[in-house]
Amino acid sequence: MQLTDDIRSSSSDPELVASRREHIARCATHVFVKKGYDRTNVDEIADACGMSKGNLYNYVGSKEDILYLVIDRGLTNLTKTIEDLCDRLSNVAPADALREFIKTLYRGVGEDADFTLFTYQETKNLSPTARQRILDAASRDVAVCEELLRRGVESGEFKINNPMLLAHNIITLGHMWAVRRWFLGKRCTLEEYIREQTESILKTILVDERTTIES
Amino acid sequence: MQLTDDIRSSSSDPELVASRREHIARCATHVFVKKGYDRTNVDEIADACGMSKGNLYNYVGSKEDILYLVIDRGLTNLTKTIEDLCDRLSNVAPADALREFIKTLYRGVGEDADFTLFTYQETKNLSPTARQRILDAASRDVAVCEELLRRGVESGEFKINNPMLLAHNIITLGHMWAVRRWFLGKRCTLEEYIREQTESILKTILVDERTTIES
Repeated sequence: MQLTDDIRSSSSDPELVASRREHIARCATHVFVKKGYDRTNVDEIADACGMSKGNLYNYVGSKEDILYLVIDRGLTNLTKTIEDLCDRLSNVAPADALREFIKTLYRGVGEDADFTLFTYQETKNLSPTARQRILDAASRDVAVCEELLRRGVESGEFKINNPMLLAHNIITLGHMWAVRRWFLGKRCTLEEYIREQTESILKTILVDERTTIES
Repeated sequence: MQLTDDIRSSSSDPELVASRREHIARCATHVFVKKGYDRTNVDEIADACGMSKGNLYNYVGSKEDILYLVIDRGLTNLTKTIEDLCDRLSNVAPADALREFIKTLYRGVGEDADFTLFTYQETKNLSPTARQRILDAASRDVAVCEELLRRGVESGEFKINNPMLLAHNIITLGHMWAVRRWFLGKRCTLEEYIREQTESILKTILVDERTTIES
């Protein structure tokens, strides 16, 4: 069950509600990571959404509701990205699958950098249920990456000492694009970041290094 | 100038003030990362320090003073660690210097995990001066590591495509021991984490891979 199932709305058009809530969640995530959840008030969120406070209250009941919208939206996007990747990559050779995995995941972080940053800054302030959902999603991302690495080890394409730790590195280095954008953003583009991290990772694990040439 | 230079104290014994403030800063960092700065009150900090509120106010004037103590203590420790490393490693061969750099820095993160976590969670809430000091220290750590990597490239021991990015990876993967301890802490020890990250990094950059055997 989503955290937002119980949020009341005065509109009876489910598509309109969904599209407005998507907009509210995206704008609110930006305000939360800039000011912090505790220091943000509903007026500021309405401003960031370009909506009147009265109109905002047609779609949410409180600041806490908005927090749940932010979390549901972020986690739903993440889950969709990971599930699509699993489907698409199940029959792809490990090195190419890993390239595609890193590219898709890191671009996802780039597109929704605010949500990644939000999870690093605010997870501790959430209710136990919301917090656990974020930690579960973060663990799942590592597990999916680890599984992909293990497949490459089994096929003889990769040699990896500790696939869990490497998977954790891959996931968290992706997050860093959002979390340390004040540093990285001045020094390289996201596509350069993706290319260099991918090559550096493949270099460590490919049994036959010539495979990197195709990348 | 330190942010804490102006904090008033009712004690005239500078050593006592310094030792009490060290204690207060360490305990307060822990409470701040657990509850968030905004949600913490001075009573809770006094509790965590095992001091009465009245006694606490002998050494600080406000919650904001405590925040500055936390930042000064964390940054002073970090700077000391990095400066000691620079002195110690200036004449050490690059691969050994890199091993020692990672080990010392990651152990430092382990010893003061709360402060690392604090910088990831709370930097955005600080005054511009305090925020800039934290970002400057974070940039300096990357620059020192990058310099060490470049020295290895110049001596022919390392082959590195992008020393800045690798230095950033080394520093942030160290931070992850603190920031993602909910994940890593269940899966490996800090010493295992240090060993495996070091070997994986050296494997990517050593021109002559046999050098890894001594580690």
